[in-house]
Amino acid sequence: MSDTGLRTFFEPEGVAIVGARRNMGFGYGIPILLKAHGWADRTYLVNPSVDELHGMKVYPSVLDVPDPVDLAVVLVPAAVVPKMLEETGRRGIRHAIVESAGFAEIGEQGRKLQDEAASVAAGHGIRVIGPNCVGLVNTANRFSTVEIIDESLEPGRTAIIAQSGVFGNCLLDMLPQFRMFVSKAVTLGDRMDVNECDVLEHLADDPDTGVIMMYLEGAADGVRLKRVLADVTMKKPVMVLKSGRTPAGRAATESHTASLSGEDELYEAVFTQTGTLRAANLEGLVEMARAFSTLPAPRGNRLGIVTSSGSLGVMATDTAVRYGLAVPPLSEKTAERMRADSPTWMNVKNPLDVGPSGQFSAALSALMEDDEIDMVLAVTIIPYAVFSELMKMGFDGRGWFGDIAAIKDASPGKPLVVVAVGHSDFVGHMAEVAGPDVPIYVSPEPGARSLASLYHYWRWRSAGGVGGFRQCY
Amino acid sequence: MSDTGLRTFFEPEGVAIVGARRNMGFGYGIPILLKAHGWADRTYLVNPSVDELHGMKVYPSVLDVPDPVDLAVVLVPAAVVPKMLEETGRRGIRHAIVESAGFAEIGEQGRKLQDEAASVAAGHGIRVIGPNCVGLVNTANRFSTVEIIDESLEPGRTAIIAQSGVFGNCLLDMLPQFRMFVSKAVTLGDRMDVNECDVLEHLADDPDTGVIMMYLEGAADGVRLKRVLADVTMKKPVMVLKSGRTPAGRAATESHTASLSGEDELYEAVFTQTGTLRAANLEGLVEMARAFSTLPAPRGNRLGIVTSSGSLGVMATDTAVRYGLAVPPLSEKTAERMRADSPTWMNVKNPLDVGPSGQFSAALSALMEDDEIDMVLAVTIIPYAVFSELMKMGFDGRGWFGDIAAIKDASPGKPLVVVAVGHSDFVGHMAEVAGPDVPIYVSPEPGARSLASLYHYWRWRSAGGVGGFRQCY
Repeated sequence: MSDTGLRTFFEPEGVAIVGARRNMGFGYGIPILLKAHGWADRTYLVNPSVDELHGMKVYPSVLDVPDPVDLAVVLVPAAVVPKMLEETGRRGIRHAIVESAGFAEIGEQGRKLQDEAASVAAGHGIRVIGPNCVGLVNTANRFSTVEIIDESLEPGRTAIIAQSGVFGNCLLDMLPQFRMFVSKAVTLGDRMDVNECDVLEHLADDPDTGVIMMYLEGAADGVRLKRVLADVTMKKPVMVLKSGRTPAGRAATESHTASLSGEDELYEAVFTQTGTLRAANLEGLVEMARAFSTLPAPRGNRLGIVTSSGSLGVMATDTAVRYGLAVPPLSEKTAERMRADSPTWMNVKNPLDVGPSGQFSAALSALMEDDEIDMVLAVTIIPYAVFSELMKMGFDGRGWFGDIAAIKDASPGKPLVVVAVGHSDFVGHMAEVAGPDVPIYVSPEPGARSLASLYHYWRWRSAGGVGGFRQCY
Repeated sequence: MSDTGLRTFFEPEGVAIVGARRNMGFGYGIPILLKAHGWADRTYLVNPSVDELHGMKVYPSVLDVPDPVDLAVVLVPAAVVPKMLEETGRRGIRHAIVESAGFAEIGEQGRKLQDEAASVAAGHGIRVIGPNCVGLVNTANRFSTVEIIDESLEPGRTAIIAQSGVFGNCLLDMLPQFRMFVSKAVTLGDRMDVNECDVLEHLADDPDTGVIMMYLEGAADGVRLKRVLADVTMKKPVMVLKSGRTPAGRAATESHTASLSGEDELYEAVFTQTGTLRAANLEGLVEMARAFSTLPAPRGNRLGIVTSSGSLGVMATDTAVRYGLAVPPLSEKTAERMRADSPTWMNVKNPLDVGPSGQFSAALSALMEDDEIDMVLAVTIIPYAVFSELMKMGFDGRGWFGDIAAIKDASPGKPLVVVAVGHSDFVGHMAEVAGPDVPIYVSPEPGARSLASLYHYWRWRSAGGVGGFRQCY
């Protein structure tokens, strides 16, 4: 068992599924999932009224499950959960994920039941995730108690902590389209025991996790959260989406995962004082996570912009400057290098609008190789009718805009973001050209804004958390 | 000729393409496009050194072009443009689109050439769009001097005015993925003559145009722009993306379409005083346009939210309240109606989190039919693994979330927006279920925010422009 006591949740030796069942629901789907991902020999189904399910033996009670078993996933109706936890404890299992709903989130009656269950668990020293959650995922060993699609099990560097089960699950559905993959994901639900602080501490030391995304409605323990965040953000970027910003939103929160969202100003202060990257909304959370999960730390805030359309360069500049980046004049070296091969109409400055000169690739390389530029934003835009003609002539995005992935690889220490504006097929094509390690956005603002958040985080972290932290989202 | 003198640009009887050519470029592509869209018999190609192109006759000079011809599209190198405009005038043509670059946008020398060209045009009473633009599109008669893909020629209710040619073109590429189609699109370029005010006035009276999207780097005539906007916004919603918000962005603008962006505060005041919907960025522009081009005017600001996940309902509520919408308690009638068929765990309130109750469709209908609700936001979210299982069992999004398009049709006067969160295939599926007249967003914020902007615009307009106007983007 690890220091924080959570390792068994992610790396069980054997799993009892308490409440396996024949009809639709978690008790039906999770066994299928575990079997499909190679866990059949370590999965023990439990249900007194079923003998066999999906070709797997079903045990009448968790007490009958053979060794090795160190994790119980509890899927029975709420009223039976205390009894099942009691049996789990007697069986010697010290980790349980309770996915059943009907606890604190439904009001006073549920809260009493939750207290009863918590008391049983505590009596046996059982750590509990949930109730009212959808469990967790560990892509490294393909272990999942969340019903997810196969592509979400591809290992990545991003971890997810979500207070809401459904939201966490759908975030897992959403990320692969952005070529984002997770290390671990945990849904917390009503937090009878394990809360976001426990998981943050565990993930801080998890070698598979590079960045952490968190969805929170309210802190389980605000004082501890502040302390934990201050520690974790010095090791890994933490991005948080905290809902319930308004009184009306907070009122809507209370009946959802049974948390009282605190005053928003307090949260804002905690996040900013601890260098936690706060997103105002879901799209901001994903935008930041895409940048942080792929890009290295920039050395400074000097942004170089290359674009095939002036207007998009202007928009990128507006955003960059607004969020504290500099868009400095081109260095003499880069300016000379660009002037050498460019048509006279090309205005050699930063942002560098190459227009239809054919100099996009050269300009991108020049900016990436320039010591006076700390990060680069490349805006690719071309009318799709023209691009389609080019494709027919044998050109592709690589021919027109350069081998962006290779150019990035040649300057691995410098953050590069691509913006592709226009037809969705063009965006998809440019995503291929940019490769999986360059985030690609469909408009200039998220490109420049995510780079700004990257800069402010790393500046703050490299200063040891001294000085102000600037939120960009 | 219409009052504003622009009709011939959109509905020419015959078009001379001055500068048709054999190699890649506008002079090569535009004739192909016109021919493909049924304009071959009204298109006259001009080039002294070419006899035939794409199977079409080429005339040595515009002076040789037969009747009827009332529009010239000028694609020759900048230096020759004044001469071509001279011949165009002598031929009796009074409308010209100059797409050639190399004028005011390149500096002093170009500005002199532009003045010369303008003087020639004025001498002949020629109205000119451009130079340094990509022309215009009229989907009603499939006339386009912009090289666009076929799907962008499908007629719609949205008009585009773009100062930048490439940007306007790529906006045309971008919209079909959101099922948005245009009536007319005009790119302005260096605005030798026709500017955004002329086009706004023309579009205000254009029966094919319902809403207007505009990209501006700087006003050609700020005083007139304010007057024109005040008039046009009383007839049609106008959404504007004004770049060059920061000094650095403004500096980047100068060399692009040769406009000096004015101080941003001034623009902000003009837009707000005239009820012009300002977008801070490209995504905001598109988000608003999607709502305004499909939704009716709401009667008030009372928003009903139905969701299949509490957390997303909280986020939607946060955004709605932040931008001035109310999320009021459910009416007694709707609350009773929902309680009648709902499981006891379901918390019947607004936002209405139906969870997995199967009551989504009933809840959506109840909100749409409730007189105490002015607009509805429906948040559809379900783990994609579960959804895939449901699909295999014969359920689809319509079965699970209701026939959203039909529910909308039953209450045609009430704005409805759908949010679909998760896998991109799920979003695509829900777009089908929602139908083309319900905007669908991939996160709660744009859904609630676009509804808020809809409310504030219509409240302001129905009050005759009296009282404050609230920007939401």
